[in-house]
Amino acid sequence: MKRRDLLKGSLLAGTLALLPKAQAQGAPQNRPGLGRRYRNLIVFVYDGFSWEDYAIAQAYARRRQGRTLALERLLARYPTGLVNTYSLTSYVTESSAAANAMSCGVKTVNGGLAIHVDGTPLKPFFAAAKEAGKAVGLVTTTTVTNATPAGFVVSNPDRNAEERIAEQYLEFGAEVYLGGGDCFFSPERRSDKKDLYAAFAQAGYAVVRTPQDLAQTNADKLLGVFSESHIPYEIDRRFQGLRVPSLKEMVQAALPRLASYRQGFALQVEAGRIDHANHLNDAGATLWDVLAADEALELLMAFVDQHPDTLLIVVSDHATGTGGLYGAGQSYLESSLGIDLLEGQKASFEHMLRLLGSSPDPAQVKEAYRALKGVGLEDGEAERVVRAIREKVYWPEGVRHGVQPANTLAWAMAQRNPERPDRPNIGFASGQHTASPVMLALYGQGLGFQNLGLLDNTQVFHLMGQALGIRYQNPAMSEEEALEILKARPQAQGLRHPEDTLA
Amino acid sequence: MKRRDLLKGSLLAGTLALLPKAQAQGAPQNRPGLGRRYRNLIVFVYDGFSWEDYAIAQAYARRRQGRTLALERLLARYPTGLVNTYSLTSYVTESSAAANAMSCGVKTVNGGLAIHVDGTPLKPFFAAAKEAGKAVGLVTTTTVTNATPAGFVVSNPDRNAEERIAEQYLEFGAEVYLGGGDCFFSPERRSDKKDLYAAFAQAGYAVVRTPQDLAQTNADKLLGVFSESHIPYEIDRRFQGLRVPSLKEMVQAALPRLASYRQGFALQVEAGRIDHANHLNDAGATLWDVLAADEALELLMAFVDQHPDTLLIVVSDHATGTGGLYGAGQSYLESSLGIDLLEGQKASFEHMLRLLGSSPDPAQVKEAYRALKGVGLEDGEAERVVRAIREKVYWPEGVRHGVQPANTLAWAMAQRNPERPDRPNIGFASGQHTASPVMLALYGQGLGFQNLGLLDNTQVFHLMGQALGIRYQNPAMSEEEALEILKARPQAQGLRHPEDTLA
Repeated sequence: MKRRDLLKGSLLAGTLALLPKAQAQGAPQNRPGLGRRYRNLIVFVYDGFSWEDYAIAQAYARRRQGRTLALERLLARYPTGLVNTYSLTSYVTESSAAANAMSCGVKTVNGGLAIHVDGTPLKPFFAAAKEAGKAVGLVTTTTVTNATPAGFVVSNPDRNAEERIAEQYLEFGAEVYLGGGDCFFSPERRSDKKDLYAAFAQAGYAVVRTPQDLAQTNADKLLGVFSESHIPYEIDRRFQGLRVPSLKEMVQAALPRLASYRQGFALQVEAGRIDHANHLNDAGATLWDVLAADEALELLMAFVDQHPDTLLIVVSDHATGTGGLYGAGQSYLESSLGIDLLEGQKASFEHMLRLLGSSPDPAQVKEAYRALKGVGLEDGEAERVVRAIREKVYWPEGVRHGVQPANTLAWAMAQRNPERPDRPNIGFASGQHTASPVMLALYGQGLGFQNLGLLDNTQVFHLMGQALGIRYQNPAMSEEEALEILKARPQAQGLRHPEDTLA
Repeated sequence: MKRRDLLKGSLLAGTLALLPKAQAQGAPQNRPGLGRRYRNLIVFVYDGFSWEDYAIAQAYARRRQGRTLALERLLARYPTGLVNTYSLTSYVTESSAAANAMSCGVKTVNGGLAIHVDGTPLKPFFAAAKEAGKAVGLVTTTTVTNATPAGFVVSNPDRNAEERIAEQYLEFGAEVYLGGGDCFFSPERRSDKKDLYAAFAQAGYAVVRTPQDLAQTNADKLLGVFSESHIPYEIDRRFQGLRVPSLKEMVQAALPRLASYRQGFALQVEAGRIDHANHLNDAGATLWDVLAADEALELLMAFVDQHPDTLLIVVSDHATGTGGLYGAGQSYLESSLGIDLLEGQKASFEHMLRLLGSSPDPAQVKEAYRALKGVGLEDGEAERVVRAIREKVYWPEGVRHGVQPANTLAWAMAQRNPERPDRPNIGFASGQHTASPVMLALYGQGLGFQNLGLLDNTQVFHLMGQALGIRYQNPAMSEEEALEILKARPQAQGLRHPEDTLA
């Protein structure tokens, strides 16, 4: 595998011809140093979290709850930076390539976990941390086997091979796994009928399946799987009474367990469904998952205060949807209404779709929006929703809204009548990931208030390495090499756009 | 005017009831210090510039031009921060309130320049700089009398009173005014028939109207007005041959002139039409105005290198539209195509609309998109554009796309067919300003690489004051007071949404 000087493209400044892509991706960026080591490392990933999401949550907390987000205090007072997220061959990353960049320190092609597109495996950082004697934990609101946690511990060419990843977790032997994904562990649901729960129990894990069990167990090693697939959104847990642990409750269970290991620990916490809510253009679900993340963040910051040998890295892997509060009314004077109107949202589109089933009628749709989204739909809007659910006829047309039927549900409740401001003035740019730089912040003793600047997501790997005193280098691949391999790969049918999938 | 402790809301943490708004707006934020003084101050405002705009420009420069943006180098290596932009009563600001916050150090209600909603005038920072003996310059691509420059020098209850603002400029007597807005200076176009050009000439200004005149004049005091209204977009200047100076050329004219004043200077440069292009959801126009800003930035940074007694503040006043490059193709592997397809854009929607006139037919529309946007429209799309122009029937329906007919023109060229990726995968969340925190960066000797963190836009006032050693305090107004006054004010007709206006 050749290593290229990715900076040489800058010598060509001023030429307007199309350049080989590899020359264009790299650019000199900041390489921050920590200046000290820590015993414990916590990486908190806000998946699919944009600056527009941040602004809405900040405003909601201030205006509706009279408080300041823990995240606002962190961003205001501690080292902060902006992370470039592009993957090896695409200016828009998906979560596996983003996880790889942070976990392995090198750019990869979208799709695989801790692996190059030619099959070269990479060592994920938490594997190196385990070798160095650290206890390891993964806590997420997605399936526990999903790309962002998985890319920190195991290598797999296919991020969607979650049944296999569950087995890899058993082989890896982290101390704590908490999240969703029963379908990848249960003998009734796995395609190979293997009972992964029994296998984990045999390997010394307490296997817990409910919030009560989670709160009560005092086992050292823990597998907690709380839902068939992803853990329901916070908005549904909170207002619809779904019985799953909150992200904070899972973190609360993980921390003392991991802290009991004498050589320290490495923990990844993921607020994974911010991304999903944004894919679905579901502003209420996004808000509450950000607020739930903030409760977990508050707990993590308190832990760091009490355990000053701990570094906390808070980072987003990419933005999704960029659902922004937009200016409304004369001179934008009515804009804050959009924050107040979020109060009427009491369930996610995911939950609404479950309740509506496969053949709702327009009256049921209208009632669902009134009760769960605080919005009165017009007949035409309700009929569009019915057609999206029953006939898969989606709206608005266009590729950027690819996660259906949810994007049609979001379209139906868009603000349409400026004379009657009864819907949130929040608009989404797409139902997909986007390219903008995202949040990075550090919390820990001895950091001062240093600037992280604009930096590459691969720098998270170097920050983690500095924190725990673990240095190694994964092999890099050039963009040209990757593009050659992609060209030779059997093509997917034409250019297929993701639909009904969450990247 | 009472001053409230805006922080007291944080005492109420945890209560979920609706709080008085004033308690919710304020929050403890970072107050960075410079640690030294400067002779000269340059504030470069990227108007309406979001992080999505940044990502697209960064990618275009790397991939299509093989170079690194000056802005990328600045953000990577120098003090950077994130600016909260909300105004006194609205979580979405417009440009006047944003300019006031930076220029006067206090939050105001959207709409007036350096003034509170009760009529209390505020002293803008450049007025204080002038009193302290600094030469003053304003350089912008909008009308030179527009909100962002005007809010730095004069007070006016109505940001749209640009004829009056032109007179206020004469009274104020800055050394350099460069931008657009002939309609506010010319006796043929002003409603009062006054000849402001003659008045400026009488006051010792060289009045220039063309790029050639601008390059040739050696006058000390300069009024340059290069277009009837805003200066055309960079994309039209560059590819359609419109004869106006670039932002860089205007900065090039302003700098040596201002640098000749012995007591130093305060200069505002505004890349003002990034905002307009985003209002219009015109990704090509946004890109080229960002690239033009980057050329001006490069020049400004070189000036700072040569004049180390100069502080350069680069800041966005708010985000607009949040037009993001979104993931396209299987595993988002085709996402970078959207960057390549920007190459086909050779004119703005503004220019296209001029060429099409008031009654185009579908064939003319299709030809315009093919030649100027590099996109082949379907019949139905072309017909929608015709209806938008001829009948004011706009698309898509919805309030968030309020700047018409341009937003319909943007809708027409949205990516629709995933099998045929021949349109840029760039989507806009709205045609309005949004609430996200935006860019702040500093460039100057002796700054080190300090963190600015998340901070309020009013901190720009304090940074400017520290830089030039000018300290004063404008009166603050509480949000409650402002809301009382707004309540008593004659209402606009219902809740009118801005249409065909650029805030």
